[in-house]
Amino acid sequence: MPEISDTLSALPSHAIIREVGLRDGLQSIARVLPTAHKLEWIQAAYDAGQREIEVGSFVPARLLPQLADTAELLAFAKTLPGLTASVLVPNLKGAERAMECEADLMLLPLSASHAHSLANLRKTPDEVLAEIERIVAARNASGSRTLIEVGISTAFGCTLQGVVAPAEVLRLLRAVLDAGVDRVGLADTVGYADPAMVSRLFEQALPLAGARLNCAHFHDTRGLGLANVFAALQCGVTRFDACLGGIGGCPHAPGASGNVATEDLAYMLKSMGVATGQDFDRLLALRAKLAQWLAGENLRGSIWRAGLPRTLRADASSTTLS
Amino acid sequence: MPEISDTLSALPSHAIIREVGLRDGLQSIARVLPTAHKLEWIQAAYDAGQREIEVGSFVPARLLPQLADTAELLAFAKTLPGLTASVLVPNLKGAERAMECEADLMLLPLSASHAHSLANLRKTPDEVLAEIERIVAARNASGSRTLIEVGISTAFGCTLQGVVAPAEVLRLLRAVLDAGVDRVGLADTVGYADPAMVSRLFEQALPLAGARLNCAHFHDTRGLGLANVFAALQCGVTRFDACLGGIGGCPHAPGASGNVATEDLAYMLKSMGVATGQDFDRLLALRAKLAQWLAGENLRGSIWRAGLPRTLRADASSTTLS
Repeated sequence: MPEISDTLSALPSHAIIREVGLRDGLQSIARVLPTAHKLEWIQAAYDAGQREIEVGSFVPARLLPQLADTAELLAFAKTLPGLTASVLVPNLKGAERAMECEADLMLLPLSASHAHSLANLRKTPDEVLAEIERIVAARNASGSRTLIEVGISTAFGCTLQGVVAPAEVLRLLRAVLDAGVDRVGLADTVGYADPAMVSRLFEQALPLAGARLNCAHFHDTRGLGLANVFAALQCGVTRFDACLGGIGGCPHAPGASGNVATEDLAYMLKSMGVATGQDFDRLLALRAKLAQWLAGENLRGSIWRAGLPRTLRADASSTTLS
Repeated sequence: MPEISDTLSALPSHAIIREVGLRDGLQSIARVLPTAHKLEWIQAAYDAGQREIEVGSFVPARLLPQLADTAELLAFAKTLPGLTASVLVPNLKGAERAMECEADLMLLPLSASHAHSLANLRKTPDEVLAEIERIVAARNASGSRTLIEVGISTAFGCTLQGVVAPAEVLRLLRAVLDAGVDRVGLADTVGYADPAMVSRLFEQALPLAGARLNCAHFHDTRGLGLANVFAALQCGVTRFDACLGGIGGCPHAPGASGNVATEDLAYMLKSMGVATGQDFDRLLALRAKLAQWLAGENLRGSIWRAGLPRTLRADASSTTLS
C-alpha cells in the first residue's frame, strides 16, 4: 500500500469551533432575538460541548439593537466553567466595556480592504491599527486579563474594493503582532476565498505569526466554506468560527450567507477524525430550537436534513463528536 | 516569502466537468422532462463549453420513464463536434444498445457495497463484475469504438450496509482494470465521503490504476461535495461529475441531494486557476431555464444566488472560465 500523504498525516487530532452565531449571525438579522432565548442558546451550546462562544458586540445599541444585551449574556457565559466568552469590540470604548465586564477575549476587527474599513468603521486600516495599539496599551496598563484577538477581515477580497493584496494582509498582520495582540485570525468576510487562496495566505502568514495565528473565519456565500476549512486545516489551523444553522451574512455582501454552519463543520471534522468535543444530537436539537426562534429566516446547512452517516453512528459508542 | 506548498503547485491547470444532470439528476425526479427541453439543455450546455455530457441511461423505460428518450438524445449529442456523449448501462443488453447507438462512452456502475449492489442491480458485486467482463468481450469482438468506464459506486460507504472496506473497493478496481475497461471512477453515491477519506482512497487507488482512474463523483448530501473535489484534485484527479443546479439524489439515500452543482464546481475551479472552459453567464442562464422547467423541484447550489466575486469579474476580459 502507498503511504498516507503528508497532507493527511498532518491533520490535527483536535480542533476548536467557536460559535459566533450570537454575534455574526444575529447582527445581520433584523429581528431581535429575546435575551431569554440567547441565554438558552449559550447554555445549550455549552451543554453540547462548545467551549468558545462569541456572545455579542460592544457597539452602541442604536447601531445594533440586536446585540444590546451583550453585557448580560457575557455575565451569564462567565458562570459556565471552562467557557471562553468573547465579544467583538470596534474601538477603545467597546474594549473598555469588555474589560469592565471581564470578557475572556475581545475580538477587534481590522479590514484589510481600505474601502471596507471605511464603510464598516469609518476609519482607514492604519487608523484602526492605531486604535488597536491604544487598546493593547489600555489593557496592559489596567492589568485586565481579557485577551485581545484581531480578526483581519476581507483578507481574501472585498465586495467594495475587489482585490485585497495579500501583501497588505501580511503587513497588517505583522503590525498587529508588533502591537502585542495575543491572537490573530484571517477572515473571508464576503465569501471570496477558495481553498487555493486559503492555503497560499495561511502558508505565508503562519511563519510570521506562529501559534498566535490560530483562527479562520469563512463565510459560505459561494458554497466553499467547508472546502476552505479543509485547506486551512491542512496548513495547521485548528480554530474555526462557525454559526449554528449557517445564519448571518454581511451588509456589504449581497446574497451572502453566514459563516459555515457549526453543525456541518462539526460533522466534517468528526468524519475526518478531528475531535471537537461536540455532542451531535444536542447540537441538532439546539439548531431545531433556533429554527423555531428565527422562523422565517433563512437557515442553512446540510447535515440537519440528511443526518449523520450510518458509519459514524455505527462506529461510535455515543454520538459525542470527541 | 515562504514557498508555495507542493500541494498547491500540484493543482492541475485544467479539469473536466462532466454534466450528469440529464441522467443522475433527472432519474431521481419523478416528473418526465420533455425531450425538447433535454435537447435544449444539451445544446445550451455545449454552447456554454461543456464537452462531456451523460445524456441518459439504457434501462427499461418501465423502470425509468424519465430516461426513455436516451437514444434520441444520444443521436442529437453525436451531432455536436467534440462532445463526448456518455450513457449509463446496467447490463449487457444496455451495453448492446449503447454500442448500436454509437455512444462515445458507456458508464457501468459497480457497487462496492454488497447490499447496495443487490438493491440496485439485484446482483452481487462479483456478478456485476462478470457482466462487465462480458460487456468488454462484446465490445472488443464487435469492433465498437464505445469506451467503457466503470463507476465504482458506494466507494466511501453505504446507507444500507454502512462501512464499505477500502480493500474491497481496491479489489474491485483491480478486477475491472484486469477486465480491460478503459476508464474507472470512484463515486460517493450517498454522500458519506469526507476530504480525508477521498485523499486516502484516491492515493491508494491511483498507483493501481494510473491515468485510467480519472473520474470522481461526489454527492453533496452532507455539504462536503466541493471539499471532496478539492481533496481529489490535490491527488491529481482532473475529471468530475456534476449536476446543474445540484439536482438529483439516490433512492437509497434519504434526504440526499444530487451531485455537486455544476455551476459551483465551475466557480471553485476557476477561482483556483483550474480552467474548465465553461462560460459562466451561459451556464447560469441554462440553470435559470432548468429552474423553470423543474419548477417546484429542489434545486441547490450557491453561486447562482451570490454571483461571481467581483475579483473574478474584474480580472477577466470575458466571463469564460477558461
